[in-house]
Amino acid sequence: MAEGFPEAEFRDRLERLQGHMGDLDALLLTSPADIFWITGFLTRFWESPARPWFVLVPRAGDPGAVIPSIGAALMGATWLRDVRTWDAPDPDDDGVSLLAEAVRELVPASGALGVPMGLETALRMPLADYERLREAIAPRAIQDGTQAIQRAREVKSDAEVDKIRGTCALAGRAFDAAPGFATPGRGLDAVFRDFQAALLREGADWVSYVAGAAGPAGYDDVIAPAGPQKLAAGDVLMLDTGAVRDGYFCDFDRNIAIGPVAPRVADVHRALWDVTENALEALRPGMTAADVHALMASGLEAGGCTPCPGRLGHGLGVTLTEWPSFTPKDQTVLRAGMVLTLEPSAFTEGGHFLTHEENIVLRAGGPELLSPRAPREMVQA
Amino acid sequence: MAEGFPEAEFRDRLERLQGHMGDLDALLLTSPADIFWITGFLTRFWESPARPWFVLVPRAGDPGAVIPSIGAALMGATWLRDVRTWDAPDPDDDGVSLLAEAVRELVPASGALGVPMGLETALRMPLADYERLREAIAPRAIQDGTQAIQRAREVKSDAEVDKIRGTCALAGRAFDAAPGFATPGRGLDAVFRDFQAALLREGADWVSYVAGAAGPAGYDDVIAPAGPQKLAAGDVLMLDTGAVRDGYFCDFDRNIAIGPVAPRVADVHRALWDVTENALEALRPGMTAADVHALMASGLEAGGCTPCPGRLGHGLGVTLTEWPSFTPKDQTVLRAGMVLTLEPSAFTEGGHFLTHEENIVLRAGGPELLSPRAPREMVQA
Repeated sequence: MAEGFPEAEFRDRLERLQGHMGDLDALLLTSPADIFWITGFLTRFWESPARPWFVLVPRAGDPGAVIPSIGAALMGATWLRDVRTWDAPDPDDDGVSLLAEAVRELVPASGALGVPMGLETALRMPLADYERLREAIAPRAIQDGTQAIQRAREVKSDAEVDKIRGTCALAGRAFDAAPGFATPGRGLDAVFRDFQAALLREGADWVSYVAGAAGPAGYDDVIAPAGPQKLAAGDVLMLDTGAVRDGYFCDFDRNIAIGPVAPRVADVHRALWDVTENALEALRPGMTAADVHALMASGLEAGGCTPCPGRLGHGLGVTLTEWPSFTPKDQTVLRAGMVLTLEPSAFTEGGHFLTHEENIVLRAGGPELLSPRAPREMVQA
Repeated sequence: MAEGFPEAEFRDRLERLQGHMGDLDALLLTSPADIFWITGFLTRFWESPARPWFVLVPRAGDPGAVIPSIGAALMGATWLRDVRTWDAPDPDDDGVSLLAEAVRELVPASGALGVPMGLETALRMPLADYERLREAIAPRAIQDGTQAIQRAREVKSDAEVDKIRGTCALAGRAFDAAPGFATPGRGLDAVFRDFQAALLREGADWVSYVAGAAGPAGYDDVIAPAGPQKLAAGDVLMLDTGAVRDGYFCDFDRNIAIGPVAPRVADVHRALWDVTENALEALRPGMTAADVHALMASGLEAGGCTPCPGRLGHGLGVTLTEWPSFTPKDQTVLRAGMVLTLEPSAFTEGGHFLTHEENIVLRAGGPELLSPRAPREMVQA
């Protein structure tokens, strides 16, 4: 850290957000990502579940913050001018009356407050306090504000794309170092630690996500923490990371051959690479997320592979994953400026699989790679 | 990672939790911490906001999980036997009907489902899906389950205390290394990176929280990310960390003198150390959180210092911070087995302050230190 953005960047985001707010008189944001995106307020303090934080975005005019006083200095350094604080945590009234007052100022009695309620959202405040807020602002309605924040956030500015490109680049350098520490006989837990240290050394501010797995036929679990099991010759090791710099994530993986791997494993890796290459040519604004799933799934099948269930890629930005999801059901329309991951996964044998991931920004003419492209043949450690 | 716990440990936790459930027929848990605590399901995959995860704890009998299929293997490796999955994210029905069915099996039509709704809780699922769940399980009532989960979680088992002690020990070794990289002329961002790397080297699985600040009179913001500003002779540098090993956090800080510091700064550090020492003697089960606040605040005043507003310590365990909070309002009664931080903070001058933190487990006879005790005189880099 920490290079932020000029106020003009946030004013542009605000204008786009307000353009999506429809009949909502104000939008209540409570999540770290939403609040960072509109204010620039960046802190790891969210790791503490003790206190709620609120930002209100009016239909016209500038956003205001209603936050614990411990955040006054940091929020005061953002572009927000209306910052109200209380001494949290307060078991009697943890900001609710202060927030309700701010809502009543912005939303007429016959109006509506938007709160994100849809897929990929969660309200980061106690449910009982949400009910208290609802009563305190009655008869104002509360409506789903998911469309407003998601349509605005999903299109990244050039400044945001630059941030994500920078994070991808540093992760690429850390992956390049992996064959040096991912050697036969080393424990997966030691490899994870070295990989995180490499990400920090290459410029990550912090490492919010590292996952991976290893085995001779691929892996069957990509979310388990690393244990002491040792890498063995013939394993394929997958490392995946969501490192963070200036608040922006990368999210891509690499498969590394621990010595020569089984022919089937090498073949599946090539097939994953090929469908990614095809998607890098074929994606265009106007396609749906489901179209991208169909493109990659059919490509894998044509390449003799069985695609894994679940999504084959997703959005990316101020969180490790964002909507949309490349699944058969997601009808989100792709738009220029979306940052996305292409993440085809396919079975090898016996329930094991490989997954391969790259990060792109979608332009009018097609994808632009943000992650350094993996080689078609797995790198050998 | 990753050494877990034997099934007997979880059965003991379950028995304690069920003992606090009162009239609730089942308790719905959605947060990473609650789910890890009762199941042992540990993953960094929570970093992705895409999918909700559910665990249901019945009033009698074993818990069951209703989770995205990507977690089937990892949850299948825990002590839970009833693991139901769906292919998430699903925009049509993201686990709600599957969850509702499980609730209906456990909760009679006239019964009540508990959901944590109080201070320090948040529902980690889309609000619209929560409303759908509520309708799908009607006429069953939904009641606040905060007391059940918080009273059960706040008392740590010996096995949990051992985990936290281990994390504290590794952080202590990383702090010991800090004078080697926290030298005049180095940027705070570089110091933060080195500190995180040191924590990994000393055995952290990952580093969920690092904060800090530096200045000649202390600091006025302890939650901002590190910028490029360089350490200067005469600064006091504070580093604070919530490192994680086996899913358990430490949360303590150290103040490091970058060369000789101003006499007032050294005095305030001694005063903070002295009130901590006094608390290490005086705390007993049966005191309230407010009593501890009064003890430390009055001690600081007696030592010629003005205590900072906000809390002067809190709980600790499977999240960086847990209830209770050492504030004048928190009437939570301290119990043997609670793991707590003592975190007195006091002003130096001009709105700047110092904060000092240690981690303890409260025993029947008083506190037992979990963090290696800081020296009364600041370590000099």
